[in-house]
Amino acid sequence: MSQCAHRRVAVPSLRAAHLAAIVPLLLWLTACGGAPESATDESGLPARIRADAATLREAALRSDVGYETLARLCDEHGHRLSGSERLERAIDWMAGELRSMGFQNVRKEPVQVPVWIRGDESLTLLEPMELEVPMLGLGMSVGTPSGGLTGEVVVVEDFDELEALSVSDVSGRIVLFDAPYRGYGRTVPYRTQGAIAAAQRGAVAALVRSIGPPGLRTPHTGTMRYRDDTPRIPAAAIATEDSDMIARLADSGNRVVVRLQMSARNEPDGLSHNLVAEVVGRETPEEVVVIGGHLDSWDVGTGAQDDGVGCLIAVDAARLMLETGLIPRRTVRIVLWTNEENGLRGARAYRDAHTDELDRHVAAIESDSGNGLVQGFRFDFRPAVMGFDSAEDGGEAFEAGRDRMMAVTRDIADLLATTGADSVFAAGSGADVGPLAARGVPALGLHHDTSEYFVIHHTEADTFDKIDLTDMQKNTAAMAVMAYVLAEMEGTLRP
Amino acid sequence: MSQCAHRRVAVPSLRAAHLAAIVPLLLWLTACGGAPESATDESGLPARIRADAATLREAALRSDVGYETLARLCDEHGHRLSGSERLERAIDWMAGELRSMGFQNVRKEPVQVPVWIRGDESLTLLEPMELEVPMLGLGMSVGTPSGGLTGEVVVVEDFDELEALSVSDVSGRIVLFDAPYRGYGRTVPYRTQGAIAAAQRGAVAALVRSIGPPGLRTPHTGTMRYRDDTPRIPAAAIATEDSDMIARLADSGNRVVVRLQMSARNEPDGLSHNLVAEVVGRETPEEVVVIGGHLDSWDVGTGAQDDGVGCLIAVDAARLMLETGLIPRRTVRIVLWTNEENGLRGARAYRDAHTDELDRHVAAIESDSGNGLVQGFRFDFRPAVMGFDSAEDGGEAFEAGRDRMMAVTRDIADLLATTGADSVFAAGSGADVGPLAARGVPALGLHHDTSEYFVIHHTEADTFDKIDLTDMQKNTAAMAVMAYVLAEMEGTLRP
Repeated sequence: MSQCAHRRVAVPSLRAAHLAAIVPLLLWLTACGGAPESATDESGLPARIRADAATLREAALRSDVGYETLARLCDEHGHRLSGSERLERAIDWMAGELRSMGFQNVRKEPVQVPVWIRGDESLTLLEPMELEVPMLGLGMSVGTPSGGLTGEVVVVEDFDELEALSVSDVSGRIVLFDAPYRGYGRTVPYRTQGAIAAAQRGAVAALVRSIGPPGLRTPHTGTMRYRDDTPRIPAAAIATEDSDMIARLADSGNRVVVRLQMSARNEPDGLSHNLVAEVVGRETPEEVVVIGGHLDSWDVGTGAQDDGVGCLIAVDAARLMLETGLIPRRTVRIVLWTNEENGLRGARAYRDAHTDELDRHVAAIESDSGNGLVQGFRFDFRPAVMGFDSAEDGGEAFEAGRDRMMAVTRDIADLLATTGADSVFAAGSGADVGPLAARGVPALGLHHDTSEYFVIHHTEADTFDKIDLTDMQKNTAAMAVMAYVLAEMEGTLRP
Repeated sequence: MSQCAHRRVAVPSLRAAHLAAIVPLLLWLTACGGAPESATDESGLPARIRADAATLREAALRSDVGYETLARLCDEHGHRLSGSERLERAIDWMAGELRSMGFQNVRKEPVQVPVWIRGDESLTLLEPMELEVPMLGLGMSVGTPSGGLTGEVVVVEDFDELEALSVSDVSGRIVLFDAPYRGYGRTVPYRTQGAIAAAQRGAVAALVRSIGPPGLRTPHTGTMRYRDDTPRIPAAAIATEDSDMIARLADSGNRVVVRLQMSARNEPDGLSHNLVAEVVGRETPEEVVVIGGHLDSWDVGTGAQDDGVGCLIAVDAARLMLETGLIPRRTVRIVLWTNEENGLRGARAYRDAHTDELDRHVAAIESDSGNGLVQGFRFDFRPAVMGFDSAEDGGEAFEAGRDRMMAVTRDIADLLATTGADSVFAAGSGADVGPLAARGVPALGLHHDTSEYFVIHHTEADTFDKIDLTDMQKNTAAMAVMAYVLAEMEGTLRP
């Protein structure tokens, strides 16, 4: 076991001390005697921390507390759209569970959230034949007039194809964005911004091919946006199968006419809550490692993988510290955010309510991409961590800071090599920790296999049975080890 | 190429000639010089027939006519429950397609069919929380009173567990058959007979875990039965996920209450049709090889794999005989049956309308298990083929007749070895050819990989996109070769 210890160099003004900011990395590397890529055997972590981490890891691999609690969350509370009473009931129930588990400072922090109500909805193909088409209105969409909107469908594959049409080609019609799925990030703009683009061409409604791989005629909902300078037209998702079918019909010269009926509506903001609980640090409780997920979900399925499981991964990771008596020197704070899905108000409210202590947030870790086999961590090291406005401002100092975060994160992830969670990517963290990252908090996300995730994402199929216990235990082990070591080690991820 | 020729021995009275019935097999085996298992290279088929079969096989592997016609059937006509106007419109459209393809004697044969109408339906979990549960009423089920039926759920895994309950445990409640899927044949009795068993114990409704592997919260419909001496209670299927959830809730001591609402109703029988078309035989047109599938479907999805694809496999197989000019000596008759799903009235009506010529039906081949990779043929050789009431009556003669059918079928299937369709199983044929088999017609079914079939079977996901062109071409090649050779070879499958 290496005797390498963490060193920190105080840097009163980071902006004025680009070179000084490189020092911690150099010290870390020198003390540890290895490049970050090969630091496996010469870790900078003391033997005691490594042993504690192993204890937590093995306890996580045996625990079914998170799994069983998730079953009750999903089965007894169902889906949990923010702005609904359902979510508030689930938050209250979860607060009771957290108290029963022995956490301290269990509290709800108020958040004003949008209130969107789906209401009745349907899509009926009228020409060339009558057929009910499975659909899900997009979150935040306005409804149609009662009785619905009837219109001919104009099929486009992408925004360019829509742009190439004249307003008279589109005006009064319904645009279907039949965009092939090319990964979530690349394809989701058709869902978020399709209604804007369609309205700009005069369309009366927008339909979107569901953002995900083909399922079993399974539409995927999700949030969408409007612009103040563009008419607000209703928008809904249809399954890949029906998008294919309508495209085939149009391609073969059929006039395709549908009736879209949605009684969706947006109401004034309502009161929701972030739920917070702590393992209070034994030496410097004012320093905080945040871990969590979002307790709200879409109003379909039961929000098991998105993101009930992320919440329970964080909860059980922290609970295992209580169970094993491994209370770290810093506070580990569970935050179960509200309104991730349609507003991110919970994440912003947490940031605003805790502005005064953000410089004592040593890290924030989120799990919000399901429960696939954990492969390691993604991290999000922004210029703000070092007091810069941009990476260019930071120059080499920024690069050095990021390299150090990579090196330290890899050293910790190496403790998870037996579960395969030892890869680290500089590739983003999570939506709810994003506002913290933007204010200078080093942010991480669990990195999972997501090959099954986007088949189920935002569909009725997001239910508890999709959660594999062994995968959840490995995810919990990864969260527990990363959170514990960051809360216990001498230095932090900050330069 | 072997010069082995087919031999037939006329057997005036089969019942009186058990030994004589063995002769054809012995002749076939002697002439071919091999046991049926190893007859690959010493086929009893003349070189010309083998060459014709190869021509048809290769033409099928290039054809997309069946595939494109299936797309139009599904996309422009949708699902096709028998008793509906939708099916009759699809039959009329298909009749026009068959005439355009050049078939002779295209005609509709009337069939009286049940008329079942699904109507509105819903299932709502009320306790321990409120949640809409995806469901599909079972075909032929009665509806609930308007406003629905509310009751506590009693969960059982099998009929024995239900039998072990007292009437007072079940009376006034709703039974959920949460029977794990152990293959279609073993599990489907819970769907077909669950309502009877539940009603016998005093239940007011029956819910059934969908008969199939887990999908994406996808309920599977299908037919069910009542008994005259038992109250007719409504019955519906729920997805495996929700069956799991309700079982978990009940196991953990929750009282589970649901409201089932179904406006399903059975109306007086209506008029439907079998659709028939022919490639008239060039020498003995009165001898017939029937090939087909059923054009009706459940009222969900668009009936692509069950059984639109079976219909188009048969249609394109026969069309390729017209296209290549390979008109066999006997007639190849396409039959697209109606009402396979909820009554089998089409199959019985065909049998009754053609009673006088059934002894000149040399074979009947159905494709009704989807479009998975074709592996060969299943066959159904019943005692009636040889004039016996049972296999015991037939004794060794029956065994010999069946062995001969196996040997001949294998010789023909060997012509499909390059597409992998050269396996033959004595394992049943198809529902629609069953009534013909019972009257003495040698019956076959295409044998496919069904590993994906039962995920989609009777669900909203049974849509055209699930059909793979290459697989369909291979299935069509198998149907074309088997039908052509049986219609062209000197002997038949009958002893």
